[in-house]
Amino acid sequence: MASSEQIVQQYWQAAHRRDWDGFAALLDENVVYEVPQTRERIRGRDHYLDFNITYPGDWQLRVDSVIGNAQQAVSRITFFVDGTSCEGICFFTQQHGRITHILDYWPEPYDPPYRHTAHIERY
Amino acid sequence: MASSEQIVQQYWQAAHRRDWDGFAALLDENVVYEVPQTRERIRGRDHYLDFNITYPGDWQLRVDSVIGNAQQAVSRITFFVDGTSCEGICFFTQQHGRITHILDYWPEPYDPPYRHTAHIERY
Repeated sequence: MASSEQIVQQYWQAAHRRDWDGFAALLDENVVYEVPQTRERIRGRDHYLDFNITYPGDWQLRVDSVIGNAQQAVSRITFFVDGTSCEGICFFTQQHGRITHILDYWPEPYDPPYRHTAHIERY
Repeated sequence: MASSEQIVQQYWQAAHRRDWDGFAALLDENVVYEVPQTRERIRGRDHYLDFNITYPGDWQLRVDSVIGNAQQAVSRITFFVDGTSCEGICFFTQQHGRITHILDYWPEPYDPPYRHTAHIERY
């Protein structure tokens, strides 16, 4: 049985290659996908597949890190599309090798607030 | 030796209680803290302590989840201050029970883009 970290690596490889059969094989039939920042939700493997297959643009992605325990894993990816890139953070829950829940975040750059410490540098 | 997940739970408990001695004891002397969204960085335990101690407001926090492997862990927290709340996602690396690196994200709500699938609900 693949580990949670391996399942998440396979998930992103399949997406990157548009291997939708391989992608679907990693998903539980009743997978739930949620985007807390927009409060969007998709229920079910077929619906979630449709969301991914119809996602516009000639996008590519790079996996930056995957951290997992027995049942859960989180990935940081960089997503490239139309000459721009953004960072995605995605939390996965799996049972018996199938992904049952996905929580997807896309943190955007923002201007730093005033800080009460002098010890901050920018990079 | 505490696990990565336990260290992160202790870190947030200490912060929530303003137990700055306990908080400092979890940090490596050369800890590096980074906020990718603002490109801010703080180097060193004393500087990072100062940042936390001087953080304004009567803030409180709730740990929503912690996922870790041997050396790394990630937390989702809800941060409450001045009658508002926001979500934080924080990636930790530890060595020998001390935190050496922190990557801190604060994903803000945004309007959902046009989706090419019909299978999305809002919550």
